[in-house]
Amino acid sequence: MMPKGMTVKTVRGKLPPLRAFAQIFLRTRFLLAIFMAGLIIMLWRNLSGPAANLQKFYCFGPAKSPLEISANEHNSWHAHQRTPILFNHHEPLVVDTQTIQNDDLNSIKSTPEAWKNKERVLILTPLRDASYYLAKYFDLVSQLTYPHELIDLAFLISDTKDDTKAALVQELQRIQKGVKPFRSVKIVEKDFGLSESQDVEVRHSFAFQGPRRKAMGRARNYLLYSALKPDHSWVYWRDVDIVDSPERILEDFMSHNKDVIVPNIWFHRYHDGHDIEGRFDYNSWQESEKGLALAAKLPKDTVLAEGYKEYETGRKYMAKMGDWRQDKDDEIELDGIGGVSILVKADVHRSGINFPAYAFENQAETEGFAKMAKRAGYKVIGLPNYVVWHIDTEEKPGNA
Amino acid sequence: MMPKGMTVKTVRGKLPPLRAFAQIFLRTRFLLAIFMAGLIIMLWRNLSGPAANLQKFYCFGPAKSPLEISANEHNSWHAHQRTPILFNHHEPLVVDTQTIQNDDLNSIKSTPEAWKNKERVLILTPLRDASYYLAKYFDLVSQLTYPHELIDLAFLISDTKDDTKAALVQELQRIQKGVKPFRSVKIVEKDFGLSESQDVEVRHSFAFQGPRRKAMGRARNYLLYSALKPDHSWVYWRDVDIVDSPERILEDFMSHNKDVIVPNIWFHRYHDGHDIEGRFDYNSWQESEKGLALAAKLPKDTVLAEGYKEYETGRKYMAKMGDWRQDKDDEIELDGIGGVSILVKADVHRSGINFPAYAFENQAETEGFAKMAKRAGYKVIGLPNYVVWHIDTEEKPGNA
Repeated sequence: MMPKGMTVKTVRGKLPPLRAFAQIFLRTRFLLAIFMAGLIIMLWRNLSGPAANLQKFYCFGPAKSPLEISANEHNSWHAHQRTPILFNHHEPLVVDTQTIQNDDLNSIKSTPEAWKNKERVLILTPLRDASYYLAKYFDLVSQLTYPHELIDLAFLISDTKDDTKAALVQELQRIQKGVKPFRSVKIVEKDFGLSESQDVEVRHSFAFQGPRRKAMGRARNYLLYSALKPDHSWVYWRDVDIVDSPERILEDFMSHNKDVIVPNIWFHRYHDGHDIEGRFDYNSWQESEKGLALAAKLPKDTVLAEGYKEYETGRKYMAKMGDWRQDKDDEIELDGIGGVSILVKADVHRSGINFPAYAFENQAETEGFAKMAKRAGYKVIGLPNYVVWHIDTEEKPGNA
Repeated sequence: MMPKGMTVKTVRGKLPPLRAFAQIFLRTRFLLAIFMAGLIIMLWRNLSGPAANLQKFYCFGPAKSPLEISANEHNSWHAHQRTPILFNHHEPLVVDTQTIQNDDLNSIKSTPEAWKNKERVLILTPLRDASYYLAKYFDLVSQLTYPHELIDLAFLISDTKDDTKAALVQELQRIQKGVKPFRSVKIVEKDFGLSESQDVEVRHSFAFQGPRRKAMGRARNYLLYSALKPDHSWVYWRDVDIVDSPERILEDFMSHNKDVIVPNIWFHRYHDGHDIEGRFDYNSWQESEKGLALAAKLPKDTVLAEGYKEYETGRKYMAKMGDWRQDKDDEIELDGIGGVSILVKADVHRSGINFPAYAFENQAETEGFAKMAKRAGYKVIGLPNYVVWHIDTEEKPGNA
């Protein structure tokens, strides 16, 4: 590959002799210079560190240990690679026996717009010798505008001598086979062996109030705990002897979004051709200093009853306030309530608030229920201008 | 028919003449005598009365008006007559829609010989980050001698971060497909948003006792009211962290026939090779004058906790009494109880007695439960010599 005429010897003659090169390259000073230069370059590159290094080679992933990169970073890192293959070592647990059930109560809410969320309502009515009232009761209940397929009905029949059960089943049969049946109906039977008279005079005598309210509290609890299901959002207590109430009562009450809410209870009575609009329910009241002082002096087992001269409580009665011609949404706070018509968020009952069948802070049944709810921090609200009409019991109430 | 040779005339001659007879019979004295005799006989028969009469004519039925004879008498009266024909004018009411149900609670009893009456038991266990304990729990529960087909299990899983639900379902699946499955199992889920630490030190600090006990009371009530069915006779509360308990615990407790009953709760801890048999549960106590006086001075919202120097109650603790070597059936009355192992007659819960999630007479949860049960007149009993062994929580209890 050399030009013609040039022999190895001539080239060798023009170039410096090999020995001269070797002399230069092998000289100690030269070798030391190269070694030092290399050392300096390596040291400099080492000191400039990995960050600078990664800035140059940015395509090699995040500046983290593989153990520290997040799932998102990991995904974007591997995004350009092949189809990912994910192994899930957690095989699903398939429950294949019907005896194991699961109820998630976290999904059960009670909201002001209950019907939109399909919240379920349980209507509870205690019955005792009640066949006379049932026709009117179902007349009103079947007109409720809240979707009937979201409503469960439950009744307690106790210590009854008349044909209540047959009358009840006949009405229910008619309604459940009609155009707007309720979601379900439960009839609970339990006799408490009450032989006491339920005549108006006897049952409103003072001495009878304590045992009577305790027994009614127990009956309400039996009904509640036999009928309450995990999917109920609201519990509506409704007495059988209501003669008139708004069709939208459930929606009206729900819109207040309160833990416990009651209307005012009045009755119609006609004297000389005009309606005296009697005030019925003296169990809905606001506590007074006098009432608290009285209770503090009483034995813990004594049940205070309203409106008897034996005990002067000085409480403020909702029945004496309000007017159905005024704004129906006015609210007042209450410390005791009556049981004619109560809407309760189901979680209040689930938390354990119920109708004491004993003296709870010297109150029982519905009044004790309100006291208990307040003690547990729940709101108890009355609507003085929202009137539900009770049947006229023709009685002269002790609390007139 | 007269003897021969005697004519009528001769006979007539021998006999007194007819006229003489007539004279005798028609004499006033004679007639009067006959009349008087007849009168006396008739009077005597009349006065001897209908009883004697009936003894003679016994086949003519009971001595009563037909309106007064009973159904039995009527039947025996007509027994010899023709086939009776009975008309029933009360047509039966046939309920032919499945949405109407009927529960008769009068048939639900809680008796000392429960298994003979096939009484149903509900076992309730609240769970929170409990997967570690579940194997031991099911080890013990599946050994219970009470018939498993009469037992329902229910669990509440709340505010849990570990794999409790999967561990639970896996254990349940195994048991329910085994040879002695339980009647049913219900898993209830509800988070109460408790973010507080459940470390032993924090959870046993005094300030944390009130809110902690209230929250646990609420959780127990949610579980109870989601799982209690009308056919349950007994409710057995059992904590998940029991490490040893007798197999016959249900039968043993039932035989006492008490409304609420708890055993003594101890734990094993080994020091220098021997078991110190630690006393665990200081929530089972008898009230003292000092405790009542202290509570009377406290605000109604304050929850008393046991064994903290902040409040000296002077109560008598069951944990400090008793010995498992003594008679296991010894009973003492209690005013407060712990929740590790409680057997309750279901009617106590149905009457409304539950675990206060608020200050009930200055107690909450299980201690409040006992106070409430006592207030309502139920018996609360502890068995100081019947020991159930809890896991050693390695804690130094505030109440040591």
